[in-house]
Amino acid sequence: MTAPLPRRLLAEFLGSALLAALVIGSGIAAQRLSDDVGLQLLENAAATAAGLYALILIFGPVSGAHFNPVVSLVDAALGGRPWRDVAAYIPVQIVGCASGAVLANGMFGLAAISVSEHHRASGPHLLAEVVATAGLLLVIFSLARTSRLATVPAAVGAYIGAAYWFTSSTSFANPAITIGRTLSDTFAGIAPASVPTFILAQLAGAGLALGLIRALYP
Amino acid sequence: MTAPLPRRLLAEFLGSALLAALVIGSGIAAQRLSDDVGLQLLENAAATAAGLYALILIFGPVSGAHFNPVVSLVDAALGGRPWRDVAAYIPVQIVGCASGAVLANGMFGLAAISVSEHHRASGPHLLAEVVATAGLLLVIFSLARTSRLATVPAAVGAYIGAAYWFTSSTSFANPAITIGRTLSDTFAGIAPASVPTFILAQLAGAGLALGLIRALYP
Amino acid sequence: MTAPLPRRLLAEFLGSALLAALVIGSGIAAQRLSDDVGLQLLENAAATAAGLYALILIFGPVSGAHFNPVVSLVDAALGGRPWRDVAAYIPVQIVGCASGAVLANGMFGLAAISVSEHHRASGPHLLAEVVATAGLLLVIFSLARTSRLATVPAAVGAYIGAAYWFTSSTSFANPAITIGRTLSDTFAGIAPASVPTFILAQLAGAGLALGLIRALYP
Amino acid sequence: MTAPLPRRLLAEFLGSALLAALVIGSGIAAQRLSDDVGLQLLENAAATAAGLYALILIFGPVSGAHFNPVVSLVDAALGGRPWRDVAAYIPVQIVGCASGAVLANGMFGLAAISVSEHHRASGPHLLAEVVATAGLLLVIFSLARTSRLATVPAAVGAYIGAAYWFTSSTSFANPAITIGRTLSDTFAGIAPASVPTFILAQLAGAGLALGLIRALYP
Repeated sequence: MTAPLPRRLLAEFLGSALLAALVIGSGIAAQRLSDDVGLQLLENAAATAAGLYALILIFGPVSGAHFNPVVSLVDAALGGRPWRDVAAYIPVQIVGCASGAVLANGMFGLAAISVSEHHRASGPHLLAEVVATAGLLLVIFSLARTSRLATVPAAVGAYIGAAYWFTSSTSFANPAITIGRTLSDTFAGIAPASVPTFILAQLAGAGLALGLIRALYP
Repeated sequence: MTAPLPRRLLAEFLGSALLAALVIGSGIAAQRLSDDVGLQLLENAAATAAGLYALILIFGPVSGAHFNPVVSLVDAALGGRPWRDVAAYIPVQIVGCASGAVLANGMFGLAAISVSEHHRASGPHLLAEVVATAGLLLVIFSLARTSRLATVPAAVGAYIGAAYWFTSSTSFANPAITIGRTLSDTFAGIAPASVPTFILAQLAGAGLALGLIRALYP
Repeated sequence: MTAPLPRRLLAEFLGSALLAALVIGSGIAAQRLSDDVGLQLLENAAATAAGLYALILIFGPVSGAHFNPVVSLVDAALGGRPWRDVAAYIPVQIVGCASGAVLANGMFGLAAISVSEHHRASGPHLLAEVVATAGLLLVIFSLARTSRLATVPAAVGAYIGAAYWFTSSTSFANPAITIGRTLSDTFAGIAPASVPTFILAQLAGAGLALGLIRALYP
Repeated sequence: MTAPLPRRLLAEFLGSALLAALVIGSGIAAQRLSDDVGLQLLENAAATAAGLYALILIFGPVSGAHFNPVVSLVDAALGGRPWRDVAAYIPVQIVGCASGAVLANGMFGLAAISVSEHHRASGPHLLAEVVATAGLLLVIFSLARTSRLATVPAAVGAYIGAAYWFTSSTSFANPAITIGRTLSDTFAGIAPASVPTFILAQLAGAGLALGLIRALYP
């Protein structure tokens, strides 16, 4: 039933790469074509929501379509898959997101890598990342624990599209894409110096979500 | 089958808090990033519609995902749950929405509480709240009475997103979030002086909906 | 199984009124809040698509949720319901749409009735109405004839949202709402002098659709 | 079970024509009504996504709703239909898209044919077309190979709406519509000189997709 590990890792690599290309590429297009920053974020959010829906549909039956270390970690913590799978998934997700950043830069005629100078770490942004990550995990695992897995692609797309707006950090909510976004000095980029605290906030959100999921869906 | 009351109240609290954070937070982001007021409302409406879909999916199987006193009242009036549940749900919904306003303010680096000075009570706005609330209840209970409960999350999200536009009041349609929105002097705020008539209009809409639901789906 | 006629007519009246309030009300809000005409149409189209989805969900199981004389006519021509039903539905749809225009005007603090001075009849617009109407009927009846009725609400909402853009007439595609829209001299209005040719074009589109539906889904 | 070939070709012709009218028509409207180029693309993308969802629903049960030579080619390569079907589908798809361009021009009062002068062929755009086409085929055939065909209409609409943004080429991803778009010197047009390399890139994307589909869903 479960696909062999190499095939699952291929799916996680491709999905993570396309996710990063989606997020970063649509940000570049938005920044080039629109003047109003809010309109740029609307374009970026709409493209991300719709594209994420499609990507989870493509890769879900193969690997679970995590594309995100905190999803894999919480899945294992809840008993959904063995920890050794997590150890294999996480590096592939990071390399995938980094590759997707390079792909986005290439599709828009930019240097393959340009390190972002967009500093984002601040108290409110870190609070926002805790909330954004906890919400994402609540969406995924409340559906998984109630036999509604077929709704995950639409739900995650819609949630992330909304979270770009209701969190001040624009909801990274994913350590792998946080790292990948350092490689493009464009709309969706993040300076490397902001990465460690963003990831800590995301892990805190994962811990919070784990407790809430156990309380709500024992 | 039904979750124990404390777990349901936890779900109503979290859902109401995240709903208020969603509505108020996306309003703050929209106001900061865009110049055109219509574009701000489009951003606020799109985020609310998509996020509400996700929130109802998360908490629906636990508590019914009301987040709204008039939904609980009409549910009890139609025999869907005992009145004592309503008495427990309503205060939790109000405290939840107030907490979510504080959370939104915090995520955007604002004072925890800033009382809104946005006066909204006018004849046309109150008519709009009657219509908005009646429409929301028609959506929910026409689906509930025809075995289409799985469609409620998408339908309510889409309805509210539309109602931000076709009603002049931008469709509060919920006494708990009306109270919560007084605590943020930002895009989605409402002055406390406007609250009592807004809630009266929402209750009138609920009464109207109750009659129509009984006529259409006896 | 089928609801009694008075209940179905109540559903058609309410649905038509809310449809007109949705289309006209969101047009008024868009025009007031945004400067760019394209942005106004985007707001109007997004609200209409999302709201129409909700309205068809509410009233579909009672009356079929036509809200549109050409839908009732084609339904009867294809044997889906008796012609005497059509004779009862059509006047109710027209009165409903007119009432909804008055409601929209009221919610936005305008005179109950203000006759539109927006002349829209031109060759290209009439061609567009033929295409828009034929497309709407193809959506509805291709789904009806292949046991996919549960998809009609989302499909019609999405189609109309798109047709606001790809037809130059912004896709009225409905004689009842064409008449209702004469009563509001705002964004979505149409001058009475343009109505007869618009309705003729819509009837031509219905005839075209009837032939295509029979050819594609015999 | 399968419809006779003439009926399938009628479906492919009508669907391809309406697809081209949708893409080109919404582009004309966007360009006329909005100033900001990003907003124009947002309007064009939203209309295309919603309309494509409706078109695939209409014609899917008759012909498969390809409207796209690379979809037909990959379908045959994967054994989904005989090669002689592909030979019949492709010319009809091209003539359909060309007819749709003429229809769009007519609905907006333009000359029936005006050859586009919009040169688009560049290295980054060709890379983008490879990615866009491979992604489209991954969406379609990952669903087809996992018994989720009913999700194809929504998934393809969402994917294309996103791909307008995350690829620099705005994701043509279809040789037939690439040819059709040469016939309208408007927002969505493409100069004939750019067509051959666009189609080569799309075929390269199809080859890439074929390998990935076989690896992911053997």
